[in-house]
Amino acid sequence: MGDWYAHDPMTALEAKEAAQHLAFAPFAFQAARSLRDLGVLAALDAAGASGLHTDEVARQCGISAYGAAVLLDMGLSARIATESGGRYALTRVGHYLLHDAMTRTNFDFSADVCYRGLANLTQSVREGRPAGLAEFGDWPTIYPHLAELPERAHRSWFAFDHHYSDAAYAQALPYLFAQRPGRIVDIGANTGRFALRCLRHDPQVRLTLVDLPQQLAVARAQLAAHAERVDFHPVDVLDPTSALPMDGDVWWMSQFLDCFSSAQVVDILRRVGAAMPTGATLCVLECFPDRQRFESAALSLNATSLYFTALANGNSRFYRCSEFLPLVRAGGFAVQEQVDGIGLGHSLLVLRHHR
Amino acid sequence: MGDWYAHDPMTALEAKEAAQHLAFAPFAFQAARSLRDLGVLAALDAAGASGLHTDEVARQCGISAYGAAVLLDMGLSARIATESGGRYALTRVGHYLLHDAMTRTNFDFSADVCYRGLANLTQSVREGRPAGLAEFGDWPTIYPHLAELPERAHRSWFAFDHHYSDAAYAQALPYLFAQRPGRIVDIGANTGRFALRCLRHDPQVRLTLVDLPQQLAVARAQLAAHAERVDFHPVDVLDPTSALPMDGDVWWMSQFLDCFSSAQVVDILRRVGAAMPTGATLCVLECFPDRQRFESAALSLNATSLYFTALANGNSRFYRCSEFLPLVRAGGFAVQEQVDGIGLGHSLLVLRHHR
Repeated sequence: MGDWYAHDPMTALEAKEAAQHLAFAPFAFQAARSLRDLGVLAALDAAGASGLHTDEVARQCGISAYGAAVLLDMGLSARIATESGGRYALTRVGHYLLHDAMTRTNFDFSADVCYRGLANLTQSVREGRPAGLAEFGDWPTIYPHLAELPERAHRSWFAFDHHYSDAAYAQALPYLFAQRPGRIVDIGANTGRFALRCLRHDPQVRLTLVDLPQQLAVARAQLAAHAERVDFHPVDVLDPTSALPMDGDVWWMSQFLDCFSSAQVVDILRRVGAAMPTGATLCVLECFPDRQRFESAALSLNATSLYFTALANGNSRFYRCSEFLPLVRAGGFAVQEQVDGIGLGHSLLVLRHHR
Repeated sequence: MGDWYAHDPMTALEAKEAAQHLAFAPFAFQAARSLRDLGVLAALDAAGASGLHTDEVARQCGISAYGAAVLLDMGLSARIATESGGRYALTRVGHYLLHDAMTRTNFDFSADVCYRGLANLTQSVREGRPAGLAEFGDWPTIYPHLAELPERAHRSWFAFDHHYSDAAYAQALPYLFAQRPGRIVDIGANTGRFALRCLRHDPQVRLTLVDLPQQLAVARAQLAAHAERVDFHPVDVLDPTSALPMDGDVWWMSQFLDCFSSAQVVDILRRVGAAMPTGATLCVLECFPDRQRFESAALSLNATSLYFTALANGNSRFYRCSEFLPLVRAGGFAVQEQVDGIGLGHSLLVLRHHR
């Protein structure tokens, strides 16, 4: 996982301070959310270096001076604002919370999808099921119910998903189409977002979308304009009696295998390998915490793994590359090419089946 | 608020990384909680510098290897553990989470009392009421209902309260008894914890306990062994028609005025000043974020103020000393003596009424 985590970087005093910051982390998080959503960060941003008094913040944001003061004082401790002579100003952290799309997207995913359910993390680990999902419904996994999430959670879930996948798709497409596929089989096609990009990228290419029936119903609507080039193959890939497609030049799995346990990953790869035509390529787009340039990217993936644990399915994660490649081999595939640094931190694996 | 918060300490890159840590703070917090409560921190602690593999952690803690791995990997990003060659070891932050009483007390207060309710912080500020209290009951404020909190929340609330007040009481008592009081009037006596210390400290002293009837019912039971030296004065001090005691040499308010808005603080002080006998002293024990030695102590108070906002009453806080002293003057009192650094960060104000 990089050199970031090999050594303890703190003195005893620094660590005791950091432990309190961790103990009060929910306060920092919710204060940041309130400061953003109530318009306080925007007011400070507009005021610039001269800053604002709490009374001015209160007036501009339509909240009490008391509310402005308690939020801003927690904002000081969370390094979102500075204060000097009673005037509060935005820090760089505050700037990113307000303006940076990735930060906002991560924040909203935490706040709207995960915050409440994460309180059941211990129970989720003990019981091997996403116990936090009960916040949304009495469901064994989240996947067939994405469309039923409350509006904010639904929007933040897809914004998070799309923020990362859109950036990755743009850079992954050339690798796929360099293989001049006549048909792409998209396993875990979800709402058809990647399929749509392929259809627009190449006016000849045909696609087969494979996913749960609920997902494909959404995809069918999204791709209606290209219906003559798209086939739908509704299936639960975990069902060993289900049939997979038997054609296609390129098979594609984008952030699909991270939704399964390591034993399931091997099983799915074996069944895919058995179905794929000879000569076809399997392209896997994944996020590996141990192939990141920035520590915060590894953090982001390690955190999102706990979304799988507590909310999605209870048994999957963003695997380390070092543990994923042995699963690929056990599933019957060899790595032909690996490209890291796709989009904001994806890796593309081009795989060939052993025959 | 000290020099800690006057300047932005981060470069742009550091700030962007820190913003992601804030965005994923609930994951770090809940992972830390699970690592502690599932025994993982204790297992790493026992293993020492050689560390443990995830399989060993799983076996020792009775959880899945998957669960151990996702929690430990988030633990890396939260600086709770290090990893080298597949072996995880405890950092100093992890050590404090496991062993330090203050850190555990703060953490449990966050987790058991505040975590869920804080999700309603924005609404609380907008509406000027503790909207997060709905997690526990349909109550306008928390104070009359402390005894009704769920068992974990109840225990963590009182452990948090007692951890700080016990340390402060020990150091504050000599200042009080230097005045050789015959009777102490304890305003906001809560469950009688301070009163009991006074009764034990001085076998002659008599006390009058002033608080809501619900609190005094608990105090009466706690102080049964000293009943002949204790009077109870059940009253809502916010009720302008209520009568206060008229005797006593020392009047005592420990972390009482932080439970009220600044306007209410002035009003209470005026009514107390009118009731106190000539020559009596008012001793106020408070926590001021701007009179702390350590940044994490200011953080702790700024965070706990949001407990008042979202869960307790919606309008109070730990005031800065610089804003509290003007309230004292407006309430009719002058500061005779101020002692900072009482216990873990309290300040004792010895006040005289202007006549």
